[in-house]
Amino acid sequence: MKRVIGAILMVCCLGLTVAAQENVRGARKVIVSPEVNGTSVTLRLVAPNARRVVVQGGWLPMMSPGADMTLGNDTVWTYTANNLASDQYRYNFIVDGTRIIDPNNVFMIRDVGSLFSLFNVSGGVGDYYMVKDVPHGNVTRTWYHSATFGVDRRLTVYTPAGYDSKKSYPVFYLLHGSGGDEEAWITQGCVAQIMDNLIAEGKAVPMIVVMPNGNPDKQAAPGETSENFNYTPVMSNAFPKYKDGSYEMAFPEIVKFIEKTYSVKADKSHRALAGLSMGGFHTMFISMNFPDMFDYVGLFSPGVSNNGVHLETPAYQNREAKWKVQAQKGVKLYWIGVGSEDFLYKDIAACRQSMEQCGIKDVYRETDRGHEWTNWRKYLVEFSQKLFK
Amino acid sequence: MKRVIGAILMVCCLGLTVAAQENVRGARKVIVSPEVNGTSVTLRLVAPNARRVVVQGGWLPMMSPGADMTLGNDTVWTYTANNLASDQYRYNFIVDGTRIIDPNNVFMIRDVGSLFSLFNVSGGVGDYYMVKDVPHGNVTRTWYHSATFGVDRRLTVYTPAGYDSKKSYPVFYLLHGSGGDEEAWITQGCVAQIMDNLIAEGKAVPMIVVMPNGNPDKQAAPGETSENFNYTPVMSNAFPKYKDGSYEMAFPEIVKFIEKTYSVKADKSHRALAGLSMGGFHTMFISMNFPDMFDYVGLFSPGVSNNGVHLETPAYQNREAKWKVQAQKGVKLYWIGVGSEDFLYKDIAACRQSMEQCGIKDVYRETDRGHEWTNWRKYLVEFSQKLFK
Repeated sequence: MKRVIGAILMVCCLGLTVAAQENVRGARKVIVSPEVNGTSVTLRLVAPNARRVVVQGGWLPMMSPGADMTLGNDTVWTYTANNLASDQYRYNFIVDGTRIIDPNNVFMIRDVGSLFSLFNVSGGVGDYYMVKDVPHGNVTRTWYHSATFGVDRRLTVYTPAGYDSKKSYPVFYLLHGSGGDEEAWITQGCVAQIMDNLIAEGKAVPMIVVMPNGNPDKQAAPGETSENFNYTPVMSNAFPKYKDGSYEMAFPEIVKFIEKTYSVKADKSHRALAGLSMGGFHTMFISMNFPDMFDYVGLFSPGVSNNGVHLETPAYQNREAKWKVQAQKGVKLYWIGVGSEDFLYKDIAACRQSMEQCGIKDVYRETDRGHEWTNWRKYLVEFSQKLFK
Repeated sequence: MKRVIGAILMVCCLGLTVAAQENVRGARKVIVSPEVNGTSVTLRLVAPNARRVVVQGGWLPMMSPGADMTLGNDTVWTYTANNLASDQYRYNFIVDGTRIIDPNNVFMIRDVGSLFSLFNVSGGVGDYYMVKDVPHGNVTRTWYHSATFGVDRRLTVYTPAGYDSKKSYPVFYLLHGSGGDEEAWITQGCVAQIMDNLIAEGKAVPMIVVMPNGNPDKQAAPGETSENFNYTPVMSNAFPKYKDGSYEMAFPEIVKFIEKTYSVKADKSHRALAGLSMGGFHTMFISMNFPDMFDYVGLFSPGVSNNGVHLETPAYQNREAKWKVQAQKGVKLYWIGVGSEDFLYKDIAACRQSMEQCGIKDVYRETDRGHEWTNWRKYLVEFSQKLFK
């Protein structure tokens, strides 16, 4: 009801130009979408002349082409899903082949080059992804200078509520996948909400979370570089420096910048590194090439297949020898998470075996589903509770 | 061409789940939209069964219901606009009455409860709204505690490139309108780009820009409060404390927080205050109630009509007497900007007359069009160059 009133107010109250536009909207049916009731959601769309409308969303089976929406006696297409697990869900409508976000839902998110509408289902782990009445940390978009790449590069930094430059904090470096950039974890990964909530509950220690851009060919996310809107988001393997080792070997520049800029505990036992997919690959190689740097290592569905990897580069050479050194020097936690349906499942199993033979003992976590944010958020909730204790 | 390659790569390279979804996309025509060529833009949409598609955008006359798109021999609707002035433009498609953003354009923006697709036209003032190869400032979302409202409240803070806590900076407080929140200026207002570019050119002095939330009934923007997605964006006059004077009288809390947290020059001659629409109204009353606080005052299309204003509250009483004190104590710059088609044009003219009678001499700037971001960004470019000099 509140949302209907909101929609009506919106139609009535906007300034002149927008009002002229909104008057068009006023002529059509005011609907509510999404409508979340407990563990159910109903989605609605006005599309009077469409022949087929399909909904795609994170609650459907992984390879599902989507579910048909039903046209009622009016012009409203409807779809209901029940018994949803607690999570943040994304969805799209496909109207006669054209994929759109829900025009009635202002909450949305970008993943690579696609936009998705959002809704939350509470009552479980999804509660960590929501804003609660707890003290909130700061989120800063900042820039460091990379001597290696000769440019300034953007990163996102979370500092915990009450951050005080007279104290010092441990730092958790958190890397995105090959569809991402420095915006991925803070938006899709709900990092600020998760950390605020875990810290408020005393389940995680106050820490700084650093989310760098992991595409060394780019200074920043699409729209945040001097290419402006001409750089439309693509997967990282479209870039020349993809998995050529340069990002991994230049990573200490980021650590140095953070330790110079923030009030941190600058030693191995107060540094953690984790990443999803390509970021898991980065994490594996950064931590083995700099075995004195990180005491906590997390691989979330790591992209450990050799596809597109410049195996000849020094960063990727002699990995068994490097693992042995890393194991011998010690890692307090080497955590690996993967979904049972992940297309990398077998690669990750083989990689774990090689690592084990080199003396790396991991803590292994297997979930359902696959290479998806629903898993990476869960892994973050679990992993971050184990840090710096 | 680069964008077409990007789109194809995107279809080919996504992870499994998304790939399943993208395969659907792969079945349809790959189009480019928007396609900007100099001062022209072509917009395209695949909507095979639609009967009418209308485009609405910021280059059309202010009260325009939109322009029809044309269906070609294929399933692609097309529209071209020529001779566009340099700016950042927003647009929507209305497909048989349903308003959507451009499904082929990942760059978008929220204004109140509506999403808009974006494109840039360079070659003029719009160049200031784009990211250039200049040093970039930081943008932080932080929280201050309001003793008046008994809650933590969110604000956005821009610090200039090279911000150094051993130096001290002037502070510019920049307030949003009744459709906005602490995200409005940094997203729609392009504040970080404008300040980065003006400072790099030496046209503005390095300064901190503070963009608070101006809705005292809310702690933060929609999606950033513990209501999460249940607080859908509405105009501020939907809130009980709208123009009741409480925000204005509590404003020194924000100044105090900033001056405690950042390295600032904490005196009148190093403080500026400006706002658009409701924020202009706020600015007028904050600056007259605290005449020792701000030496630079900017009203951008200020919402100075008395609609919905709690005139009985002390904050809004005795305005002539307060203006006289403000004039007598002195203001280095009192700047007012308005568009000739603004629905507040006459109210603002009357207000200027009253102010002048009380001794406030303004610098007045009249532009074309009306109550729109195209004007507010321009006003910011002009006003911020006049500060702290």
